Amino acid sequence: MSTQVLPGPVIKLIEAFSGLPGIGPKTASRLAFYLLRAPQEQALNLAEALQDLKARTVLCARCFNIAETSPCAICQDETRDASILCVVEEPLDVVAIERTREFRGHYHVLHGAISPVEGIGPEDLKIDALLERVRREPVREVLLATNANLEGESTASYVAHLLKASGIRVTRLARGLPVGGDVEYADEITLSRALEGRREI
Amino acid sequence: MSTQVLPGPVIKLIEAFSGLPGIGPKTASRLAFYLLRAPQEQALNLAEALQDLKARTVLCARCFNIAETSPCAICQDETRDASILCVVEEPLDVVAIERTREFRGHYHVLHGAISPVEGIGPEDLKIDALLERVRREPVREVLLATNANLEGESTASYVAHLLKASGIRVTRLARGLPVGGDVEYADEITLSRALEGRREI
Repeated sequence: MSTQVLPGPVIKLIEAFSGLPGIGPKTASRLAFYLLRAPQEQALNLAEALQDLKARTVLCARCFNIAETSPCAICQDETRDASILCVVEEPLDVVAIERTREFRGHYHVLHGAISPVEGIGPEDLKIDALLERVRREPVREVLLATNANLEGESTASYVAHLLKASGIRVTRLARGLPVGGDVEYADEITLSRALEGRREI
Repeated sequence: MSTQVLPGPVIKLIEAFSGLPGIGPKTASRLAFYLLRAPQEQALNLAEALQDLKARTVLCARCFNIAETSPCAICQDETRDASILCVVEEPLDVVAIERTREFRGHYHVLHGAISPVEGIGPEDLKIDALLERVRREPVREVLLATNANLEGESTASYVAHLLKASGIRVTRLARGLPVGGDVEYADEITLSRALEGRREI
C-alpha cells in the first residue's frame, strides 16, 4: 500500500500550472512550493487576478482588442485618425505599436494568422469584420502589421488581395523587422522605423 | 494624453504572474493572453487551486512535511520503520525518495539548508525539532539526505556533528548523486543506488 506523498491541493495546483503553455511538471512543482512558502496574499492575489480576467474584460466590438469597455478607449478616442487602420494579429501587438507613439490611427485585431499547419483559416480570424468595417467607416489606408513570419506574410497577402478591389491604400510594415521576428518582441526604434518606412503592396 | 492600452485586469494578472520565480514580464504576458483565449474554466480552476493551497494544507507537526493532516499520512503509517529518520531539505525531496520505493522509514523536513550567503542559519531550519525528536523517539539511524551541493553538505556536517554525541548512527546518501546536483532532480535508479550505498559519517 503506497501512501500518497503530496497533499491533494498541492497536486491540483501543480496540475493547473502544468496546463499553461511552456510550464512543465518541474516548473509547476517549483511554483507550487514557492507559493506554499510565500505569504498567503501572493497566492490569493494571483487567484483574484485570474477570476477578474474574464469577468472584467471584453472584446471591443469594433476593433476586437481586449478592453474593459466596448467600444474600447482607443476606438472612443476622437483625437485619433479614423482614416487609417492598423491590422495586427494579437492584442499584445497593439501594446507594442502604441509604445512607439508613432501611430495615431485605429486598430483591428485579427486574433491570429492564417496557418494551414495549425488548421487556422481566414474564417477563424476577424477578416470578414475587417472588410465590413472598411465598407462602413471612412478608412483610406489599411496598414498590415502582421508578424514578419510565414503565417503573418500569408495573412497580409490574403487581406491585401481582398482589399485591392476597394481602392483603399494597403500598406505593410517596412522591412525594419528582423525576418522571422514577432511584432511584440521588436524594440521601439526598429518598430518606429518600420512604421515610418511602410510601403504599398 | 495617452490611452491605457491593456485593460486593468490583464495588467494585474501579468504583474501577479511576474511575481513568481523564473517568470519574467514577457512570459507573464504570454500566460495572461493564453488564459484570455482559453476556456474560462482553466483560469478559474487555477484560481481555485491557489485558494485551496494554504486553506487545505498544513505542516505535519512531527516531520514538517506538507500534508493535508497533522500528523501526516507517512507519520501515521504504522507499517513504516520509526527507527530510521531520513532528513531532507524540502518536501519535494520526500516525493523523490518515496518514488524509489527503497525507503520505508520516516522523514524529517528541514525546510532549507544552511546558507550564510542567503543569511539562512541553523536556527531558521527544523534542526532543533530534529534533535528534540531524536531524544523522544526510538531513532537508531539518521540518514542525511540533503543536497550534494555546498549548502547541503554544510547542513549535513552540522547536523552530524550535533548528533555524534547521542550515539545514534548517522549516515549520508552515497555518492551516487552527481556532485552539485539536487535530490529532487535525481533519477530513480541513481537515487536508489545512493540509498543502498549510504555510508557512516
